[in-house]
Amino acid sequence: MMKRLAILGSTGSIGQQTLEVVRAFPDRFQVVGLAAGRNIDSLATQIRQFHPRLVSFADEDTPVLPDLVKAILALVAGCHRVPMEEMAGHAEVDLVVVATSGKAGLSPSLAALKAGKSIALANKEALVMAGELITAEATQRGGEILPLDSEHSAIWQCLRGEEGDKEVARLLLTASGGPFLRRSGQQLAAATAEEALEHPTWHMGRKVTIDSATLMNKGMEVIEAHWLFGIPLDSIEVIIHPESVVHSMVEFVDGSIKAQLGIPDMRLPIQYALSYPQRWPNPQLGRLDWKQVSSLSFEPVDMDRFPCLRLAIEAAGKGGTHPVVLSAADEVAVELFLSGDIGFLDIARVVAGSLERHQGTAHPTLEEIMAADAWARQVALEIGRRG
Amino acid sequence: MMKRLAILGSTGSIGQQTLEVVRAFPDRFQVVGLAAGRNIDSLATQIRQFHPRLVSFADEDTPVLPDLVKAILALVAGCHRVPMEEMAGHAEVDLVVVATSGKAGLSPSLAALKAGKSIALANKEALVMAGELITAEATQRGGEILPLDSEHSAIWQCLRGEEGDKEVARLLLTASGGPFLRRSGQQLAAATAEEALEHPTWHMGRKVTIDSATLMNKGMEVIEAHWLFGIPLDSIEVIIHPESVVHSMVEFVDGSIKAQLGIPDMRLPIQYALSYPQRWPNPQLGRLDWKQVSSLSFEPVDMDRFPCLRLAIEAAGKGGTHPVVLSAADEVAVELFLSGDIGFLDIARVVAGSLERHQGTAHPTLEEIMAADAWARQVALEIGRRG
Repeated sequence: MMKRLAILGSTGSIGQQTLEVVRAFPDRFQVVGLAAGRNIDSLATQIRQFHPRLVSFADEDTPVLPDLVKAILALVAGCHRVPMEEMAGHAEVDLVVVATSGKAGLSPSLAALKAGKSIALANKEALVMAGELITAEATQRGGEILPLDSEHSAIWQCLRGEEGDKEVARLLLTASGGPFLRRSGQQLAAATAEEALEHPTWHMGRKVTIDSATLMNKGMEVIEAHWLFGIPLDSIEVIIHPESVVHSMVEFVDGSIKAQLGIPDMRLPIQYALSYPQRWPNPQLGRLDWKQVSSLSFEPVDMDRFPCLRLAIEAAGKGGTHPVVLSAADEVAVELFLSGDIGFLDIARVVAGSLERHQGTAHPTLEEIMAADAWARQVALEIGRRG
Repeated sequence: MMKRLAILGSTGSIGQQTLEVVRAFPDRFQVVGLAAGRNIDSLATQIRQFHPRLVSFADEDTPVLPDLVKAILALVAGCHRVPMEEMAGHAEVDLVVVATSGKAGLSPSLAALKAGKSIALANKEALVMAGELITAEATQRGGEILPLDSEHSAIWQCLRGEEGDKEVARLLLTASGGPFLRRSGQQLAAATAEEALEHPTWHMGRKVTIDSATLMNKGMEVIEAHWLFGIPLDSIEVIIHPESVVHSMVEFVDGSIKAQLGIPDMRLPIQYALSYPQRWPNPQLGRLDWKQVSSLSFEPVDMDRFPCLRLAIEAAGKGGTHPVVLSAADEVAVELFLSGDIGFLDIARVVAGSLERHQGTAHPTLEEIMAADAWARQVALEIGRRG
């Protein structure tokens, strides 16, 4: 039986690596749908290679020329263009890979789960902004949320076959610490976008790389882990592990700890989510070489130098629309930092300022989430530009 | 439902720690049987505390006075004395903890499995001497073999919920390296029994502590892992990990590695085997403190300085009665070392010499195993005494 995939965000970093895994197992997968944003060239190349029946690209905000639409659909006979939500819920799709970045992942994630499908989720914002809605939909319709992140994949693997969350004492999320682990506060203030984009162990998209440098990424992962595994926030700890070999750990109530390890290569957790519950050998993936791993180190995280982590955990504790504001304000702040408009430490300042001004709504609807998102973007931009 | 236990070797190190775990969960366990060897005093204390219906002590080789037998049976009303094999297969026993040392564990292990019972196995010799017989009996009658060793418990926990041994690429057995990890060959030649008994991380019985210093213990664990998990010998690797925090690892075919970690305390794997498939909080057990674990180190094992590991793997590769000879010759050699009759490096010499002289029997019966054991003890004694 071939697994029929829809891949949303197929031209991004995770989308491309997903297609690399798919290519390694031509008998196991059929690509039914590919969805991209503005990277039409790259999408056209993928369409020629994978012959999807459904494609999605651009949207109302970024219309494309009718001739270009025609040219793309002509690439594969019978191929037609649909909105991402329709693709996500389509009858011919077994598993939806949500690899879009930003809030664009939320609506198709909900559409897939509403249709009872499982999703392989790389998009952080879906669970950070709407964890309650997303998990409720999965529970109600029976779809599973399979994590693609290396940390959550590690936890998922460690929990495999265990009796359930009541036997979990805590989750230990590992963090490489990013490129600025050893910088003083003063040095952090002077950090440039170029420096922040040089991640020591992982190769990822720009937004997530900056979020790794501020540890906002790790904060969002704490929120995701809370929703994915039903573990209370105060039972989730972040521990710095610069080698990025131990991808995360679970401590059980009996004191036993399980850890998942591997080389830092996103194709590993991607393949696990796609092959689950099986595991397949893939000669393209490297193996951890124990001759190279002489030592694995661990240290506590310094929340004073990396306040974004604390902001994320606090926002999650307040719940409701607070994590929405966290996520939206961070996206604006990272853009301002990348364009050179604000400094590295201003990212936390912009997010903190936005959260301070926010009047939260508990158990928000999708509309309330979107409204909080729009509000936060405006406020963050104001705070950021004011300097 | 209370789990009804028979504990064989109850006065030894593992037996005592098993009873500590039992004491921590008075509503979960009933001690139906206690079996000891010569440590009658300690057994009497345990009988008074746990009120077993069945006791076993001494044997034909070490008879005790009839008055003493009477006195012991009088400790608990309705208590009667049975041979270990009868206790192991008794109808009122759910799980047999085999914590005897040496070849005494083999026969009751077989008796328990023949009766369709599961055994929690700490005794190394049972699987080293008769892995084929033991696992065949378990498969045939449906009993499970639950490991009590920290290494095998780690592997068992890592394999939990996975699809099966065909998805395992290799097992990585960790070894602390023992007290002589950093000694040169010359320094090893001069090692005394007192030094060898000073294990850096684990507190164990004398035989197993010396076996840890020679790495014979790790070699036997390779053989056990082979039988317990059905993994080929050449897919089992030993890796030195001096901190004894990672208790062992499993690498899967997709390159993902799972590890089990915890403080070095035998009560942890013992409790896991007794509570399985559940996990229970036990305030008496310590937790791994990540503030103390700043670094975990790994290095390849040096088989030239620790030839016992190579001898064990070679004997297992030859199969049949070779591992029987390995085990018996090692037991004799360790006794000679402890009594000061031979030096530390002579342990490997005695074992190697015994193996060299051995004409192996493939797929041996229990009788052939016992004959090989008796033969090897005599040969080892000769080689050891000749110097």
